[in-house]
Amino acid sequence: MSLVNDLQWRYATKKMNGKAVPQEKVDYIVEAARLAPSSSGIQPYRVLVISNKELLEKIKVAANNQSQITDGSHLLVFAAWDGYTLDKIDEVFSKTTKERGMPENAMDEYKNRLWGYLDSFGQDWHKNHSAKQAYISFGLAIAAAAEQKVDATPMEGFDAEKLDEILGLREKGLNSVVILPLGYRDEENDWLLNLKKVRIDKEDFAYEMN
Amino acid sequence: MSLVNDLQWRYATKKMNGKAVPQEKVDYIVEAARLAPSSSGIQPYRVLVISNKELLEKIKVAANNQSQITDGSHLLVFAAWDGYTLDKIDEVFSKTTKERGMPENAMDEYKNRLWGYLDSFGQDWHKNHSAKQAYISFGLAIAAAAEQKVDATPMEGFDAEKLDEILGLREKGLNSVVILPLGYRDEENDWLLNLKKVRIDKEDFAYEMN
Repeated sequence: MSLVNDLQWRYATKKMNGKAVPQEKVDYIVEAARLAPSSSGIQPYRVLVISNKELLEKIKVAANNQSQITDGSHLLVFAAWDGYTLDKIDEVFSKTTKERGMPENAMDEYKNRLWGYLDSFGQDWHKNHSAKQAYISFGLAIAAAAEQKVDATPMEGFDAEKLDEILGLREKGLNSVVILPLGYRDEENDWLLNLKKVRIDKEDFAYEMN
Repeated sequence: MSLVNDLQWRYATKKMNGKAVPQEKVDYIVEAARLAPSSSGIQPYRVLVISNKELLEKIKVAANNQSQITDGSHLLVFAAWDGYTLDKIDEVFSKTTKERGMPENAMDEYKNRLWGYLDSFGQDWHKNHSAKQAYISFGLAIAAAAEQKVDATPMEGFDAEKLDEILGLREKGLNSVVILPLGYRDEENDWLLNLKKVRIDKEDFAYEMN
């Protein structure tokens, strides 16, 4: 199989069958999310991997009662930083220099230039910027799930403030931005399964400039 | 190979060797981007596929002279809608109902609810929302490139207004949000190739709630 085949196989599953996704597949999907590239390698987001049934029930209520949240076995919550700070950036670069066996201050010039740039934009911009990075990671989790033949439903339709409260994200400096229930399609009862996947035609999507 | 292996193989290539990526590989990468899921299936973004050398030279100047733009053979520019309108949404849903053989008005209720929601947020929100959708597609293009052993460098470091002007995007209702040069690594001269890939440790990245 190839990624394009996997992407044709996947769809935004509307009805899951309750079967649990094996832990090693969940770990694999999270690993793809962790390996995602991000702006300056900062990875300004985290992933919550939730399988606790009571918690999933509460989250479902905050997400328009979408049944995949409890009919799937795991929920990935992508949560982005609520803002960049010099301390957070420092931590990233000191880990990078350490793991690469470089002098501690080897990236200081780059780091200070980056911070000057980020600092000038303010927190609203930071939130959007870190959310966008999280969406790259989210895309890779979707690809990994499809490769592993695990169904997944990308969801923005939830009350982010309520979810942050349920998960105690604010105290961690995080905002939930997008969520991904993992499970298996209920082939008999999912109304979307047999409807054609519709995408913009290639010639309207990609503009070639040769 | 698996996606996780592919993601370990890839890196933000700093120096490319000038070798051209075959057209079928470029098409494959664009196809993965086209198949990406998006909020309500709206796909509020387009991809420009640029191989024209003069144009790439101009774009390089607007992108801090990053050499991958001209040492790679193709540049993908992800451009998001500058805002949602009822007309644009209409077009998406009428294509969907048509391709699925449904009555033309079958999705009207859903569409009107969606538009009421989108309309209430205003254009700044629209821009960020459509950009985030583009980032999912961007993530899948990165995964597809890695699978095809094509090098790619995710880039936000460019003057978006200048790039929009060069490409005539404003007239199309689009904003460039992120770009991806495609090519092949220059193994002898890329300083980043042999440095360790650094990511947050798994236990600090993923919070499990069982």
